[in-house]
Amino acid sequence: MRDLHASQIKVAVEAVKARKEVNEVYFVACGGSQAVLMAGQYMFDKESSIPSHVYTANEFVYDTPKRLNENSVVISCSHSGNTPETVEATKLARSKGALTICLSNLEGSPLWEAAEYPVHYDWGKEVSDSDKNKGILYGLLFSLLSVLAPDAKWDVCLKELEKLTDLSAQAKAQYDAQAKAWAKRNKREKTIYTIGSGINYGEVYSTAMCWFMEMQWINSGCIHSGEYFHGPFEVTDYDVPFMLVKSIGHTRHLDERVENFAKKFTEDLLVLDQKDLDLSTVADEAKPYVAAILTGVVIRHFVEAIAFERGHSLDVRRYMWQMQY
Amino acid sequence: MRDLHASQIKVAVEAVKARKEVNEVYFVACGGSQAVLMAGQYMFDKESSIPSHVYTANEFVYDTPKRLNENSVVISCSHSGNTPETVEATKLARSKGALTICLSNLEGSPLWEAAEYPVHYDWGKEVSDSDKNKGILYGLLFSLLSVLAPDAKWDVCLKELEKLTDLSAQAKAQYDAQAKAWAKRNKREKTIYTIGSGINYGEVYSTAMCWFMEMQWINSGCIHSGEYFHGPFEVTDYDVPFMLVKSIGHTRHLDERVENFAKKFTEDLLVLDQKDLDLSTVADEAKPYVAAILTGVVIRHFVEAIAFERGHSLDVRRYMWQMQY
Repeated sequence: MRDLHASQIKVAVEAVKARKEVNEVYFVACGGSQAVLMAGQYMFDKESSIPSHVYTANEFVYDTPKRLNENSVVISCSHSGNTPETVEATKLARSKGALTICLSNLEGSPLWEAAEYPVHYDWGKEVSDSDKNKGILYGLLFSLLSVLAPDAKWDVCLKELEKLTDLSAQAKAQYDAQAKAWAKRNKREKTIYTIGSGINYGEVYSTAMCWFMEMQWINSGCIHSGEYFHGPFEVTDYDVPFMLVKSIGHTRHLDERVENFAKKFTEDLLVLDQKDLDLSTVADEAKPYVAAILTGVVIRHFVEAIAFERGHSLDVRRYMWQMQY
Repeated sequence: MRDLHASQIKVAVEAVKARKEVNEVYFVACGGSQAVLMAGQYMFDKESSIPSHVYTANEFVYDTPKRLNENSVVISCSHSGNTPETVEATKLARSKGALTICLSNLEGSPLWEAAEYPVHYDWGKEVSDSDKNKGILYGLLFSLLSVLAPDAKWDVCLKELEKLTDLSAQAKAQYDAQAKAWAKRNKREKTIYTIGSGINYGEVYSTAMCWFMEMQWINSGCIHSGEYFHGPFEVTDYDVPFMLVKSIGHTRHLDERVENFAKKFTEDLLVLDQKDLDLSTVADEAKPYVAAILTGVVIRHFVEAIAFERGHSLDVRRYMWQMQY
């Protein structure tokens, strides 16, 4: 991680440490950024005794949780730093006395100015993965947890993030042929469902909402592995495509149950099993977290492959940024 | 509400009152039952200072929130009382010392035995709507809130539930012709999206997951109104069907923004505006809650109409209850 980023995280964490009480952590953003932050809610929920929540920013603004106050920490995120709802939510949180931290690719953006403790992340092909949005978010989370739920493992996890660039390249190479074959086969599909659980739910959420619906105009819906058998599985048929993330974390059983059923009734089940990732150089404590980030990298590789096969650039939008809405 | 139900709620609420501390409320169930409980999480979030969370039951079992303890209240729900994940989650919560309340249609079921404070609800055509699952849940919630977030309005809200049977019949009659026309028009659609926000999110979630996917084998996905513009709206096209619930609550602006955009780009937008419901006999404090329940009734009427047009009974399942999974 770059010194700039490390020092911005340090300032934010010191400020949290200086608060007498932290009663609640809110993760607030929209779309893909909200999906990224879901990992934070998961981590606080399972690793700390501090309640945490995820909100789409405008619900937070128009129907604010009653408990929001000076003992709250609010973490918001917007790539451009310009998402109006997220800026507004951050201003609102700050006006209520909450400690506000934001993540953004753009220093000096409205979100950057709205939050008390802004943290920058890099973007692009030539930068280190530990300095991109997820690397920075996880770095912030591990650092916050080391203060709010102290454990030696957070320092270990933090160091492992430095391996993300190499591990990402390796994961892409590993899945390259499979991604191309899957893309060829699925390029005319009108609907592709995504399924996952635990810390990976955010990844499958953004795959459905952003990768498929927004950037490919492919119909999609995101199904929690624990919910599949309580409704959604009835749409399963031999020609219905599913993308399932199979966790190495505690919810693996849920994903495996979906796999065992779905593989019998559809010929188009893609299973991205985190067990197949080479995590031999990663400390055990960090494995589920590193795997979650790498799964995002692998999914992106599949999405880029299908975008190519469909001749539908990931940069094309018909409404977003094209008009007022 | 029947005396039996009122007294079961009373016993549960007295037990909550007797706890020294209540630090957290967990709502735990699967599928349609989880969707029903989402209203509870919404209410606690917006009306009390007690944090609350919704879980699909198996995630709660396999990846239990760290904070679950004797100061937690866990509310679970299963119609049959036989959903194994929900039974297991309730047992786990109880073993951790949490106060467990369950809702079920079946007295003596495994869930009924697992929870310390079981509450029964009725089901079927001839029973009062205030005694069905949502009437009983809201009755429980209002009663819990009157203890945990005291306000005179909870008693008012509780009384208004008695009007549900009449109001439901009225709402069905009001929407009958529109439901039939919508069903005729949409009977060959392969995909129908649902959109909503605030307290209504649970309704649009169960409409997608249970009504459409499970009971009609229609592809669907549930979109939060606040998320529509951050990805999903790019699938909007003249022939893409959406069902939007427009709230009378604080998030109305979010729904309206979706409506204003979507009506320009699809010819198949169904808007169920809660403002159109006749709530003139309902106390102001209770209106958003009663509207949320009535919206479920109205949606069911639309779903019954499309099931008829498609010749696809709502009772047909190809996997559920047909095999081991």
